[in-house]
This record gives sequence, structure tokens and C-alpha cells, in this order.
Amino acid sequence: MTQKLRIGKIATLLAMLDEQERASYQSIVPDVQICEGKVGSMDMQKVISAVETAVKRSKLIQEGVYRETHALYHAILEGLEGVTRGQWAIGEMMRTVGLRFAVVRGNPYVNPEEGEWIAVAFYGTIGAPIKGLEHEAVGLGVNHI
Amino acid sequence: MTQKLRIGKIATLLAMLDEQERASYQSIVPDVQICEGKVGSMDMQKVISAVETAVKRSKLIQEGVYRETHALYHAILEGLEGVTRGQWAIGEMMRTVGLRFAVVRGNPYVNPEEGEWIAVAFYGTIGAPIKGLEHEAVGLGVNHI
Amino acid sequence: MTQKLRIGKIATLLAMLDEQERASYQSIVPDVQICEGKVGSMDMQKVISAVETAVKRSKLIQEGVYRETHALYHAILEGLEGVTRGQWAIGEMMRTVGLRFAVVRGNPYVNPEEGEWIAVAFYGTIGAPIKGLEHEAVGLGVNHI
Amino acid sequence: MTQKLRIGKIATLLAMLDEQERASYQSIVPDVQICEGKVGSMDMQKVISAVETAVKRSKLIQEGVYRETHALYHAILEGLEGVTRGQWAIGEMMRTVGLRFAVVRGNPYVNPEEGEWIAVAFYGTIGAPIKGLEHEAVGLGVNHI
Amino acid sequence: MTQKLRIGKIATLLAMLDEQERASYQSIVPDVQICEGKVGSMDMQKVISAVETAVKRSKLIQEGVYRETHALYHAILEGLEGVTRGQWAIGEMMRTVGLRFAVVRGNPYVNPEEGEWIAVAFYGTIGAPIKGLEHEAVGLGVNHI
Amino acid sequence: MTQKLRIGKIATLLAMLDEQERASYQSIVPDVQICEGKVGSMDMQKVISAVETAVKRSKLIQEGVYRETHALYHAILEGLEGVTRGQWAIGEMMRTVGLRFAVVRGNPYVNPEEGEWIAVAFYGTIGAPIKGLEHEAVGLGVNHI
Repeated sequence: MTQKLRIGKIATLLAMLDEQERASYQSIVPDVQICEGKVGSMDMQKVISAVETAVKRSKLIQEGVYRETHALYHAILEGLEGVTRGQWAIGEMMRTVGLRFAVVRGNPYVNPEEGEWIAVAFYGTIGAPIKGLEHEAVGLGVNHI
Repeated sequence: MTQKLRIGKIATLLAMLDEQERASYQSIVPDVQICEGKVGSMDMQKVISAVETAVKRSKLIQEGVYRETHALYHAILEGLEGVTRGQWAIGEMMRTVGLRFAVVRGNPYVNPEEGEWIAVAFYGTIGAPIKGLEHEAVGLGVNHI
Repeated sequence: MTQKLRIGKIATLLAMLDEQERASYQSIVPDVQICEGKVGSMDMQKVISAVETAVKRSKLIQEGVYRETHALYHAILEGLEGVTRGQWAIGEMMRTVGLRFAVVRGNPYVNPEEGEWIAVAFYGTIGAPIKGLEHEAVGLGVNHI
Repeated sequence: MTQKLRIGKIATLLAMLDEQERASYQSIVPDVQICEGKVGSMDMQKVISAVETAVKRSKLIQEGVYRETHALYHAILEGLEGVTRGQWAIGEMMRTVGLRFAVVRGNPYVNPEEGEWIAVAFYGTIGAPIKGLEHEAVGLGVNHI
Repeated sequence: MTQKLRIGKIATLLAMLDEQERASYQSIVPDVQICEGKVGSMDMQKVISAVETAVKRSKLIQEGVYRETHALYHAILEGLEGVTRGQWAIGEMMRTVGLRFAVVRGNPYVNPEEGEWIAVAFYGTIGAPIKGLEHEAVGLGVNHI
Repeated sequence: MTQKLRIGKIATLLAMLDEQERASYQSIVPDVQICEGKVGSMDMQKVISAVETAVKRSKLIQEGVYRETHALYHAILEGLEGVTRGQWAIGEMMRTVGLRFAVVRGNPYVNPEEGEWIAVAFYGTIGAPIKGLEHEAVGLGVNHI
């Protein structure tokens, strides 16, 4: 891989690893702008909204600029495709998700003209709306910003 | 999460981590049946085939039993949805992938009646068929077997 | 076809045939575990739920075991793809369904290692939410259980 | 159901039933224009083409009129959604189909202004390109013509 | 193009052009049956409904005839695929649309047997539910009627 | 609409209008960077490639910078969703396209921080691979660059 900084891998690791597990990981996760959070819902709108709100609060993107909102929105949707596999729908399809998410903004490429990119990763469970009747799910979206 | 063994997380970590990075990880990746490999292609058929062949060679599934092939096939496709985000197509859409994959088979649930499940994880790049014009991609599929 | 028992064909026939029509059919529909029901709705969640409830009540699957719920859920969704053709959505797309469903559990293959499979079939109408403005729809999902 | 003639049910039965099974069925399948055939392929184009050719040869639609070709084409695609469940692709996804198809043209509604409609049904198997590693599939498409 | 009347182009122009811009366009937009309207919503059902209601009120299609409703419905959905690009969903995916639509009914082909066709075009914006955070979208659906 | 420059509308008009029709249109199409071309194919890869090549030749985007290629690629795919309605596939689905395309790069928003965006529009026909058995299709994709 020709990338100097793997923002997708960093985001996915952050979404998957517990506090303790991260300790032995510090060498892998470099100094980048990150934002993390959790969301559990049967409502796709709430999942999208939870990520957008967390990212805007953490100042990872500029709130009033559509360009940045647009880049983030498509990265979220692409990440959710990995989670939902087939259709961006949760409750309508009688299923629920419990997810941790991590968003990373940085310069993955050596060439400075490539500029900043954003990675949105999800890790958690998807399943029937009954505790335990669920399995793991992962998703990653990457976009230029 | 009520699972005793996170086969999806293990598979995703194995697909993402280098030899060196895994060293500090041994505590997280327990003793399960695994199979790993690599594939680079513009042809979806070759990607599916590479995983199926690797899994059968490693005896992770029984080759002649459709039940197991069927479980693996759907787990592969679900993993590839995260990679391709939107449509199971690579070359037809003028893009190429370079992926590492890991397949884990084990008993993720406490209740023994839940039996064995299989997780297929991909990590690598997707992009234009020109070196460097690519970004990261991740995918995970989980199925009962 | 190398199958000794065509659970998909049996489920589809049961979903399509009236009492009277079935009389002349007894030779085709063998002795398998079946569950039948009806559902009319603009809400995909209710359709999925109607099948799951009927199947659990009839003891066709074990209620507390996720493995069996997971197999049934994916078979239902695959059956509904044939009904909705394009997207798992009904009311959101301003349409309604009136469906009969049949679920069959059995051993379709000669090889005993193939074990049990489940087939979920739907037959009925899909159309505008106005009586008569509708046409027929069929769907079948098959999964290992 | 307010339809006087269930062209979808007739087409699906014809695609599913053997010669012998049809004997006891004559009362259900009325006198309508039908066309039947078989196709086995890993190539979606060949499946579509097999149905179109059979229908045109049997004069079920007028060959040079786009209006009728357009109606048939969309009915075929909708039928194939039930077969492929998720994406109109076979070989690209490393799978193969063996299908019987039946096409019925008739006037399903009481109101004569509703005119003629066409139903395309498929029944057979879908699976890995290895004999026996396959399960049943059904699909039905209905369109005005 | 072998069409004598481009109903799709006419519908798209009507959906895109302001009163003033149309003045210089009269030579392009011939004398066909048209219906125009506007709709802004986060609810796909309301968008579909707005077009159907406008078309029925303007008598462009016969209200009680399913054949015509069916043709219109599929043309609307195909037009909305261009607008939503990927999934027929708006609010569930945390986005909103503001659209102008135009529906044209006419005989596009030289051969009189081709009969009447219908074109449904949309033009407007899609984006976050915050004024200004949106970009343009276009969609066109064409069907025989 | 709060946009000062409607790059999507301009691109769609350019893709749809003949030389002669454009004459009366000059007031609407302002001074922006544009690139136009034609492509007819049963191969999605060739359609994508035709647009990319034309855009790179006309220097509308910087060839070696992935950021710009990535923005263009997604705008092309979104435009093609309007054309193909349902799946990015042409020949595999036994259909062919004949398209004119126009790509516009400019600053659509008043706020200078919104920067440059790119719009890719298609207009032409889609249909059976037989001359005349086809209808019109339109597509528009918009992305930040």
C-alpha cells in the first residue's frame, strides 16, 4: 500500500478495541484527529445523526460548510453499508444495531496535493430486537474532504 | 456484547494486522480455527474463488458438503458488500481491489446449542486500476455453519 | 435436480394453492414440518414479524436459539426480495401487500451431513393502497438451519 | 383477490410442475397463451436471451414492437430478482442457475380497459458451479403489455 | 435517435427551466399532454403521492385503471432512482428533497403500434435537512402506458 | 435554491441540447469549465472510461491526483444510476446505451469555503441491442472536488 497513513485501519481499530487492548497498540495509532462515540438504535436516521453530531461537536469538520458535511455524510453511508449489508435499513427490516464508531481525519497520501481525507468506522452488533440474538458487524467508509 | 468469542473482531484484526503488530496482540486472538490469504483482482469471481479455495485447502470447511459451502459463500458475499459498498462488482465498474482476508470458525455464543459460526473479513484497497489511486476498504460477513 | 425433497417447491405450492386445489396435490406434498399464515400490510416489519411469530408458535424453530432465528430471518428476507423486487420496502414506496406464506423445514439432500434446511414462500398481491390496483407476487427464500 | 385470471400463479405452476403433476392440475390452468422453456447458465445475458427468444418464436409478443419487448424485458428482470435475490448477477458472483421458465399472456382483470398483462416465472436451482451444491429458487415478474 | 418525439427530454427541460428560460424554448417543447408540480419532503411516500395526485387531477392518466397507474408508478420510481442514487429513501437516510416535476404523455415512436408512453422527470435539490446544505439532483423514468 | 451557479442544470442541458437548440440558450449556460463527449456501449467499463479519458484530456481534473479522480469517479457512478436505474450493468443485463455526456467544474455556492464541485450529466438512450428498441435516459451526479 502506498499510503503513509492508514486512516481506515486506525478508525477500524479504534472502533473495535477496548481501553485495555489499545494500550499495546499505541505504536500503531499515530497522532491524528479522531472522534469516537456509541449509538444503539433501530432507526438509521439516529445512527447517522449520532455520528454527525459527535463529529461536529469535536470540531473534526466545520459545521456550516456543506462541502465537509457532504464528505462526512457519504463516508457514514459507506460505512453503514458494511454494517447493514444490502440495504440501509434497520428497524424497517426488524433488526437493531449496537455500534461503536470512530472517525479519523488526516492526510493519508505522500503527495501533499491529495489533501485531507476522512474515514468513518463502525463495529458492534446487528440482530433481532432481543438481547443476544445478534452477531458482529463492521463497516468502513472513506472519502476526500 | 453477550458473545464469549468475537470471531468477527478476530477475523478483522487478522486481516488488518502485520506480523509485527500481531505480536502485541496475542492476548486478544485466542485459539480458534483460522485461514488467511491474499487476493488482488478486477474480477469478483476470482476474489470469491480465492477465499473458497483457501478455506477448503485449510480444511476449515468440509469440501463436499453444500451446507458448509453455502454458509461460507454468503459470509464471503456479506464481507464483500463492505468492500464494494453498493454493488458486488469490481472490473465492470472500472475498479480493482487488493485484499488480505481471514476466515475464522468457532463457537461465539455461551449456549452450546448455538453451535459453530463462520466469519470472513477483508482489508485492503479499492480504487482505479492505477497504482496509488486507491483507498482503504474493510468488510465482514458472519453466518451460522 | 439432485434433491430428494424439494422444500422450496412444496412451500411455494402451499402458499399458492387453495384448499380445493390441494386435494389433487397430496401426492406432491409429502410429510414435512410446515407452518402457514397470512399477512396484509404496508409495513415490512409487520410482514417479517408475522412469519417469525407463526413459525415460533408452531415450534418449527426453537425460539431462544439465535442460530435458528438467524437462518429463518435470512430466508424470510430472500423470499421478500421476490415479492418486492428491488428494495425491501412497502409503505415507504407507497405500496401494500396481501400475502399468504408457507414455511417448510426438512432434509432436502440425500447426504445426511447436509442436515436440515428451511424454505419460506410468499404468494399474493402487491400494489397501490387501493383495492384492485395490484398484481400478483411470489417469493422464495431457502437457507440451511 | 379481485383478479379473474391469475397469470402469475399459472406461470409459476407451469414452471414448477412436471408433466405428470400437471395432469391433476388441468382445472387450475385455463386456456391462455403460454410459452415454456429451459435454460442453464452462469451468464445473465443468456438467461434473458433464452426467454426473449422463446417468447418471440412462440409469437407470444410481436417481435418488431418495442412496446412489447419493453414490457417483457422488465417482467423477465423482475422474475430474475426473485431468483438471484440481491443482484442481477450469476457468474460474476461465482454461481450458476438451472431454470425452467413459463410466460403467460392474458387479461387478468374483469375491467376490459385493463387489457393484457404478461407474467414471467422461473423455477429451478441456483448454487456453486459444482453439481449438487445448489438450492431451489423461484421468481415471478408481472407487467402490463 | 429514431424517436420522433423525445418525451424524456421535454419532461426534463420542463422540470429544469424557469418561466423566463422557457420562452426561448418554445420550438423545442411541442404540443404534448403535460402535467407539472412541486414537492418538498423527507418522506418518499409524499413525493410519489404528489406526482400521482397531480397526474390524476390533470387527467393525464385514467384514475380507476390499474394499467395506467402501474405504468405511472414505475416511471415515478425510475425517476426517483436518479434523484436518490442508490436507495429509494430520503428521511430514513437523514436527507430531504425539494423537487420540481414534469410528466409528459405522448407517442414517441414513428410506428403507430408503439402507442403511448409516459415520461416522469424530477429536478431540484437533495441534501441535509438544513437550508443550503444540499446539491442538485435529476431523474427521469420512461414507461409504455 | 441558494446556489449561485447550477452546475448540475448546466451539465444536463449541455448533454441534452443540440447545437441549434443551444443558440437560444447562451444566457443560461455561463462561463464555466466544461468537457463534452459521446459514448455508445454494452460495457459499463467503457462508459466510465470514456468520461474519465475525456475529462483528463480536457484538463478538467489533474490526472495524477487521486483526490480528483475519486471525486469524478463517484460523480460518474451517480450519474449512471439515473441512466441504469437499479444496477450499474448494461451488457450483462442484455441492454445497450448510446449517451452524450457533459462534465462541469465550478463553484456553485456563494460561500467561498465551499470550493469547487463537479457535475457529470448523461443523456441518450438505453434499450435492447437492436436499433430503435430503446427509450431515453438521463443521469446526473454531483460531488465536491
